[in-house]
Amino acid sequence: MLETAEVGARVGKKEYEEALPGLRVDLLNAQFEIRNADFPMMIVLSGDDFEGLGEVLNLLHAWMDPRYLDAHVFGVQKDEERGYPRFWRYWQVLPGCGQIGVYAGSFGLGLVADHLTGESDGHEAAQRLEHARRLEQTLVDEGTLLLKLWLHLPATERRKRLKRARKHPETVRLTDRELELYERFDEAEPLIEAFLRKTSTAAAPWILIESSHLRHRNLRVAREVRDALVRRLAEPPAEPPAVTPPDLRAPTAPGMLAALDLDVSLPRDEYRQRLDALQDRLWQLGLRCREQGISSAVVFEGSDAAGKGGVIRRMTQAMDVRDYRVLPVAAPTSEEIAHHYLWRFWRRLPRAGRMLICDRSWYGRVLVERVEGLATPSEWARGYEEINDFEEQLVEHGMPVVKFWLQIDPETQLERFRAREDTPYKKYKLTPEDHRNREKRDAYEVAVEEMVARTSTDLAPWHLVPANDKRHARIQVLETVCEALERVAG
Amino acid sequence: MLETAEVGARVGKKEYEEALPGLRVDLLNAQFEIRNADFPMMIVLSGDDFEGLGEVLNLLHAWMDPRYLDAHVFGVQKDEERGYPRFWRYWQVLPGCGQIGVYAGSFGLGLVADHLTGESDGHEAAQRLEHARRLEQTLVDEGTLLLKLWLHLPATERRKRLKRARKHPETVRLTDRELELYERFDEAEPLIEAFLRKTSTAAAPWILIESSHLRHRNLRVAREVRDALVRRLAEPPAEPPAVTPPDLRAPTAPGMLAALDLDVSLPRDEYRQRLDALQDRLWQLGLRCREQGISSAVVFEGSDAAGKGGVIRRMTQAMDVRDYRVLPVAAPTSEEIAHHYLWRFWRRLPRAGRMLICDRSWYGRVLVERVEGLATPSEWARGYEEINDFEEQLVEHGMPVVKFWLQIDPETQLERFRAREDTPYKKYKLTPEDHRNREKRDAYEVAVEEMVARTSTDLAPWHLVPANDKRHARIQVLETVCEALERVAG
Repeated sequence: MLETAEVGARVGKKEYEEALPGLRVDLLNAQFEIRNADFPMMIVLSGDDFEGLGEVLNLLHAWMDPRYLDAHVFGVQKDEERGYPRFWRYWQVLPGCGQIGVYAGSFGLGLVADHLTGESDGHEAAQRLEHARRLEQTLVDEGTLLLKLWLHLPATERRKRLKRARKHPETVRLTDRELELYERFDEAEPLIEAFLRKTSTAAAPWILIESSHLRHRNLRVAREVRDALVRRLAEPPAEPPAVTPPDLRAPTAPGMLAALDLDVSLPRDEYRQRLDALQDRLWQLGLRCREQGISSAVVFEGSDAAGKGGVIRRMTQAMDVRDYRVLPVAAPTSEEIAHHYLWRFWRRLPRAGRMLICDRSWYGRVLVERVEGLATPSEWARGYEEINDFEEQLVEHGMPVVKFWLQIDPETQLERFRAREDTPYKKYKLTPEDHRNREKRDAYEVAVEEMVARTSTDLAPWHLVPANDKRHARIQVLETVCEALERVAG
Repeated sequence: MLETAEVGARVGKKEYEEALPGLRVDLLNAQFEIRNADFPMMIVLSGDDFEGLGEVLNLLHAWMDPRYLDAHVFGVQKDEERGYPRFWRYWQVLPGCGQIGVYAGSFGLGLVADHLTGESDGHEAAQRLEHARRLEQTLVDEGTLLLKLWLHLPATERRKRLKRARKHPETVRLTDRELELYERFDEAEPLIEAFLRKTSTAAAPWILIESSHLRHRNLRVAREVRDALVRRLAEPPAEPPAVTPPDLRAPTAPGMLAALDLDVSLPRDEYRQRLDALQDRLWQLGLRCREQGISSAVVFEGSDAAGKGGVIRRMTQAMDVRDYRVLPVAAPTSEEIAHHYLWRFWRRLPRAGRMLICDRSWYGRVLVERVEGLATPSEWARGYEEINDFEEQLVEHGMPVVKFWLQIDPETQLERFRAREDTPYKKYKLTPEDHRNREKRDAYEVAVEEMVARTSTDLAPWHLVPANDKRHARIQVLETVCEALERVAG
């Protein structure tokens, strides 16, 4: 692939100077227009030409309005970043609708560099390649205009630069690490080829730009950015999410929820005893996780009145406030709506040593958003895969993901709704919406069955919890959480 | 002051158990109600009882709904935090309207601890005390319900704990640092007294709680939180910002703007030469700032068409993208509106080594918000003091704040507006609003004069730039920025 970009293309001075002013007008106008558009643009600027990357990045800022470019240079991971899954840093700075983000360096170059310096092995490189591919896919699926430019310096040119660097080190703008990488870049070619091949997808192909000749390179970059932006701006705006009735037939075969024995229960005495023991165990585990820097995510889903809040309280009672954070997931803010739906969760991942407890979660995409028609069928349909990939990245980082579905039968739910009418707690007062949700029970059941079937992976299985009896449910949850933490916190 | 809390108060077991259930109902209901309120609550939980702090923090989470408490424990500064002004970490986690934040440990305890361990001297302690006082004041002014609880352990009790800790170290839940602090706490009493005295303001008094007896302490904390919240929720909601015509008489005496000689200009040749030299100088300074970890803030204010964008571009042309970020300040997002108006700027402070370039800034409070009636008179009137304090903290951290007002006369503005009609750049196309702003010129002039008079401090002076001649303006700005950086980047 790289060879295809080694054609010795050049651009004359006159052609360059004639083309540039018009290009700049186009770029600035397109940049102005995207501010009101309903999609973000992401320019991935990578390549094997280190000097070129810096030059092109600065040029983009000179040609365009630097106030509306959000550029991030990804070099060696910082200490703080190492406490999170590897792709956390990319998610943090994702542009929202109307914004242009620039990832400089980015996944590809980092992957090659870490491989050359021995910081990652083949298995890790393959994983990262896969994550890069999926991140790109999911961004494009959500509407991001993704433009990927790879600046390629032919080997002969690279060797010339190395020679010059050795002879006149004062003239060279390369860091020691970059020089070291250059020395060994020949070895990296197969890996670069594989990376380019596997991440050149229909949705987001790489555009290879020969970077030996500066005018050619600069003009090419400017044109690619301009063309991509102008083309997309000319397209009719994306349709708003269709509020069509989702495809929710009655379950065709009895599923896992139906198979659940909801009659299990636990006598009060046994409950008390086991709860005390489990809370002690969780307290100790919390301390160990803090010491060992192990973070985790515990997810609670379930219908209204299934008892999520009560279970969560039994957990937090047994933990130090410093060691957990409860995230109640309600309707997204306007900033969150302008971003990929997983962004709000990536932003809130717990730092090393802490637990994130989710009261509802990213599964909203395939539950409430699906059933209520808040996501289009194609949006929720690709949610399963996106979520599996997200959780895989957490687990790979050493962060257990423990997921619970709390199941109650309709009679128990109604009973609990009625009991709430007498409770002194305002937050339990019912709204008409609660009753509406009850009516959609069948639709939710189909969505839950499919969710469990498609996202109960060996890395992050679902735990179905019969919750008609609160005591039994709480004990099962605490036990499962303790076991999951014990597997990682030696 | 501390002595007043040493009365040996106790609460019997029966009284405690009878009081608690009702208190919890009240707490949970109040917590539910605040979610729709138009103010945030901030509980500052500090004191000289280390064990007590942790216990009370966990208790609050047990009594209340932990999903809607956002607690942060402030211990020793982390490495990342040291790259920012000291109070940056508090601003990062400020609760928004409808939220309850808990600062545990917080300014007071940190100040005492750093003093005892010799990490800060008397001067720094005084500065921090002053910043704490002002932060509290500004939060209360903006509507935050601020409740400050200080858990006090009498010296006799503390000595008992120390003795026990030496005898049975396994039973004590104190870190080594906390034990070390306890050993020397007698010395700290004058400092604690001074801190409590100086930060016990009308707006936010300290509530001292004797913490030797646990039931008394717990009940007291719960009641204070409940009472503060219930009282505030019962108050009529704050009036929406009054859109009254602000007090903007014509200037009574010719001010600094009128005294500015707008006719200065620079021939093209000289401009070119000096620009090249200044851009080289800025490039070198950028590298030095990066190496030395020096961050800075450069602020541009000025009427429409004053040439802010052009000046900024002349700066960024001479810098590496990694070393600056341009912040265009437009209308705030809904999340920003729910927070103190300075929050959005604290959140965006540059990390060590970088420059924040503001295209409009926090001065919007005393300019556009004042003139357009978007802030109430009392809001913008206290803005000057708040801004001075904010900038003082940046400068104390070693971060120069360089502020420019670009001034043009009405004829030049009209001329530039007309010229824009022919420009190919869409972003320069005029809107009716531009012409409206022109009509308010007198009102803006009064606001600018007052802003300059009240916020041009020795730490962060305003630079008034005659900008009828763009070349002259650009050179003056670049020169001023270079000089400011040279003073700090040795």
